[in-house]
Amino acid sequence: MTNRLNKIESVFNNSKLDLIALVPGSNFRYLTGGNFHLMERPTLILFTKNKKPVAILPVLEVDSFKKLNVDADIVAWQDKDGYINAFRKAAEIIGKVNCIGVEGQRIRFFESTALQEAFPNAVIQNSHALISKIRLNKDKNEIESLKKAILISEKSLMNTIDFIKENVTELDIKNYLIQELYKNDSEGLAFDPIVLASGNSALPHGHSGNYKLKKGDAILFDFGATIDGYNADITRTFFLNYADDYQSEFYNTVLQANLIGIEKSIVNNSLNNVDDSVLDYLEHSKFKEFIVHKTGHGLGLDVHEDPYVMRGNQAKLEEGMVITIEPGLYNPSKLGVRIEDDVCIDSEGPEILTSFSKDLTVIK
Amino acid sequence: MTNRLNKIESVFNNSKLDLIALVPGSNFRYLTGGNFHLMERPTLILFTKNKKPVAILPVLEVDSFKKLNVDADIVAWQDKDGYINAFRKAAEIIGKVNCIGVEGQRIRFFESTALQEAFPNAVIQNSHALISKIRLNKDKNEIESLKKAILISEKSLMNTIDFIKENVTELDIKNYLIQELYKNDSEGLAFDPIVLASGNSALPHGHSGNYKLKKGDAILFDFGATIDGYNADITRTFFLNYADDYQSEFYNTVLQANLIGIEKSIVNNSLNNVDDSVLDYLEHSKFKEFIVHKTGHGLGLDVHEDPYVMRGNQAKLEEGMVITIEPGLYNPSKLGVRIEDDVCIDSEGPEILTSFSKDLTVIK
Repeated sequence: MTNRLNKIESVFNNSKLDLIALVPGSNFRYLTGGNFHLMERPTLILFTKNKKPVAILPVLEVDSFKKLNVDADIVAWQDKDGYINAFRKAAEIIGKVNCIGVEGQRIRFFESTALQEAFPNAVIQNSHALISKIRLNKDKNEIESLKKAILISEKSLMNTIDFIKENVTELDIKNYLIQELYKNDSEGLAFDPIVLASGNSALPHGHSGNYKLKKGDAILFDFGATIDGYNADITRTFFLNYADDYQSEFYNTVLQANLIGIEKSIVNNSLNNVDDSVLDYLEHSKFKEFIVHKTGHGLGLDVHEDPYVMRGNQAKLEEGMVITIEPGLYNPSKLGVRIEDDVCIDSEGPEILTSFSKDLTVIK
Repeated sequence: MTNRLNKIESVFNNSKLDLIALVPGSNFRYLTGGNFHLMERPTLILFTKNKKPVAILPVLEVDSFKKLNVDADIVAWQDKDGYINAFRKAAEIIGKVNCIGVEGQRIRFFESTALQEAFPNAVIQNSHALISKIRLNKDKNEIESLKKAILISEKSLMNTIDFIKENVTELDIKNYLIQELYKNDSEGLAFDPIVLASGNSALPHGHSGNYKLKKGDAILFDFGATIDGYNADITRTFFLNYADDYQSEFYNTVLQANLIGIEKSIVNNSLNNVDDSVLDYLEHSKFKEFIVHKTGHGLGLDVHEDPYVMRGNQAKLEEGMVITIEPGLYNPSKLGVRIEDDVCIDSEGPEILTSFSKDLTVIK
């Protein structure tokens, strides 16, 4: 853990930032081991160049923070006093600052305005991608955690398939899947599992409801277990009792796009190229009007993190990156198919971490 | 749902705001029924006085939004184009704006800066409490959902007690509890359940670990089921096999504080007074050095929401408000006890929604 704290130096060296403010979340956890809630009580760690970090903590988190063995100055605040003086005190300890980097997709308005009040002359800059870069290349332990989370996810999915039959609702299946995940020792859910059937499957981020499964329905699962904070993220789409020719062709088009995406997931290829290869294939298929989203995203302590597999992202794949390849097609109110794998970029080629069968599967 | 949308008018009438920007979360859900993810793709609904709201949506959420039947102008954006032009287009539709109210504890830096860019002449103001006021007084359906969530929570806790014995770990118990919650048809977890034993129980927001239970340990549960988005939140502390005199006195001091808090939870009493009565009792006990936090918080679609039961909050309790009464004492590394009930403010006195026994319980 200690040398991870050094990683923050690389962020300073590659930027004009002289203060980096982290709130509870993946970067905070990665660097310090601290897994705090992002709650209504501001909890921050402020890094500066070559100085001890300063932690702004609600009193009730001080003991948990001390257990992390992070050498930091602690400014604690009590509910009754409010937090703004703690920000001011932290600013006094730190001194003059010109440019503050924050996690723009994580830090909230009330925290960033408190920072601005404490450092009135500093510019606050969204440095989300820059800071999160410290987590781009996964080490062996991280890959190991991801593999464990994926193993649990796939075992749970396999067991849940036995539960699927006509007249069972999406919610019943989702509930069953969650119990399976915990039974198989997941420490949590990567996100609220998505189980959607029939026309609902055409809602990429729909919520499971009381729809009862019928013969010929597509059933889409998108979910993941969590181990040591690392998230699996897998999507599979099945059919109940039969799949007609349209469904089969629709499915196999997505499957082909998935395979293309994986094939292109190699060191030095750009994220733009991966997405472009996948979308280009879909755009030349007869289902091109049903494209809704990009190919994928990075995966780790966050379910959605850099690098994003999308056109325009000219960053290149590097060894140790983990991305999802999850093309989908969505025919509104009729049919949605998405097939998602987790892929680790390896010098010897793409290592597909997910192993659940992708052959068109009709559940009988 | 339609008349809920009208509630936004009351926020305009009680403020200088001429635009209210909501991101996915409880206020968004309460007003529109839409339960979207707060993800890396900005998703907002912008309300203005006497005009149609404008929704800024990633393309893949448009269908889900349309199902809500909210009469709004939709500005959709694609991943490949980015979101900033959608903010600008929304600003064009809306026209001149002076003061934007946002949910400061919810909206993130990258969203608020995009708003600022689209409305360069407007002042953005943290209006979290003001906006969330629309959800302060719960109606019958909301109370019903809370009661269902609490019933599931208490049944699950009861079943989990049978699982507790020496050498079982905190994580084993937590995992078992979660399976019980889903088995009893919870739609989710109010938050990651807290199961802490022995000295760990003295960490108010600690995480369950591999500590194995021993005779004489305190075991603290803080968790809740969710129904229709409404969260139960209950804390109970038990002892394994025996409780010594110190533990018993420690426990009963917290219990007495809990009872005082409930007694004071009546219409027209101020939140300050409730917290003050509880803290005053604890401050005059022999355990006063072990006080760490305030008495409680509002409960509903958010687990922590207004009104906060804390000194300095001069707001008064009103019929239909639901708060937690959860005093605690924490002797570092030794013992933590917290007892939390969910209380609905009723004209006839406090209605205690939680009913799980609070008598000092030794699990044999």
